[in-house]
Amino acid sequence: MATLVPRNILVTGSSRGIGLEMVKQLIRKPNHPETIFATCRNPEDPQAQELKNLAEKHQGLEVIPLDVCKPSSITEAAAKITGLLKGAGLNLLINNAGILNINSTLELAAPEDMLEVYKANVIGPMLVSQAFVPLLKKAAEKSPQKGMSCSKAAIVNVTSIAGSITSMFMWQSGQVISYRCSKAALNMLTKFQSLEYAKDEILCVPLHPGWLQTDIVGRQAPMTVEEGVQKILDTLFQLSEKDSGTFVDLEGKVLPW
Amino acid sequence: MATLVPRNILVTGSSRGIGLEMVKQLIRKPNHPETIFATCRNPEDPQAQELKNLAEKHQGLEVIPLDVCKPSSITEAAAKITGLLKGAGLNLLINNAGILNINSTLELAAPEDMLEVYKANVIGPMLVSQAFVPLLKKAAEKSPQKGMSCSKAAIVNVTSIAGSITSMFMWQSGQVISYRCSKAALNMLTKFQSLEYAKDEILCVPLHPGWLQTDIVGRQAPMTVEEGVQKILDTLFQLSEKDSGTFVDLEGKVLPW
Repeated sequence: MATLVPRNILVTGSSRGIGLEMVKQLIRKPNHPETIFATCRNPEDPQAQELKNLAEKHQGLEVIPLDVCKPSSITEAAAKITGLLKGAGLNLLINNAGILNINSTLELAAPEDMLEVYKANVIGPMLVSQAFVPLLKKAAEKSPQKGMSCSKAAIVNVTSIAGSITSMFMWQSGQVISYRCSKAALNMLTKFQSLEYAKDEILCVPLHPGWLQTDIVGRQAPMTVEEGVQKILDTLFQLSEKDSGTFVDLEGKVLPW
Repeated sequence: MATLVPRNILVTGSSRGIGLEMVKQLIRKPNHPETIFATCRNPEDPQAQELKNLAEKHQGLEVIPLDVCKPSSITEAAAKITGLLKGAGLNLLINNAGILNINSTLELAAPEDMLEVYKANVIGPMLVSQAFVPLLKKAAEKSPQKGMSCSKAAIVNVTSIAGSITSMFMWQSGQVISYRCSKAALNMLTKFQSLEYAKDEILCVPLHPGWLQTDIVGRQAPMTVEEGVQKILDTLFQLSEKDSGTFVDLEGKVLPW
């Protein structure tokens, strides 16, 4: 049975790394989404060239500027996407954009580091969700599907096992305190979203994408981005109501908070 | 057996509520601390009058200005307290200061609210801990006690069960999303402190003080501040090595993250 793929998807931070690979794999699917809104801070940046090249070749792939740290940019993107959807809803919002300061240590972390990372990793996804929830609700209302799924209406917040207070994954080799605090907070936000939007049948999960060979932390990572994103998409499209509000990893395993 | 009380204690946010009551009960103890550093944003504020009156009557109670949102104020307080300690260490740091925006909802929370609460509830305790860790290490080194305890060297971060992602306590009646996210992040910070400072024998716990009849949220609370603080102090002075890094409530019960 072919997995049901969402009709309209938005992926933030899609000019590189996990976000870009998600877009690539989504457009290659035989039953690919009707529209993928691939957002990034600045489509005019040379870093976004690969994404723009893809968009030239693939109808239905829309590159939209969206800086999660700028509320006005979020509002503008939401208005633009609402127009492009022509009355349809948004099925899947993947809050993938995020930042990491690898030099952030417990003893030396500065307020500026803590604030910058919190803005990008928590406030950003919160504001993006606020802006797109009306479109997600519309998608849920219009869907003939029973229950919850990523093909009906869902918010996926890309978090990290580094935000698990229980596991404290690799705490000795990578303190990244500003990142850990932000991801624990993002997990809280996502759990709250899952409770609040259950009545609207919007599935909400924090997703640990695995430790992948991205530009930022990837040299020693055990898995390529391509392989990781395959697993992520397989997992996302199998999630159902029972998974909403749980902390899942790329293979669908439930992680502790 | 009389509980061993720390020789030198610092309590932030001690001009009212739980902080003020902690100070009151600590100075009344027969084996009271030698020095209590009771800090508040502005000792000249009329709100700090009760604390100042107490300090006039009790030797060893020092009222020190400390605004956890102002790094320079933290540095100044640390320098002043280091001087007053005359070579002694600080045994117990209680990061009690914190704020709550009761109107913060998932759908309407603004970046300013999220940032302000994160500054006070996460970055503040982090910076205060950074500033006082040298004095806590000194206390641990000088102590003849084996193992860890609040009378030897400890950081207690006052957090809340509202920061438990597992329990999502009262989420329907009190969204307080900026507060919940900040407390989840503070729990992460504290867990990290417990791991990092284990080698220095500094006990670190996030403490849920209970739902007490404070000015802010107290009208319907089931317990008076006086009763709650009695339980809190009894619990703190019984903590040992095995408790470091666990999320405890006023009665010593372990809460889930």
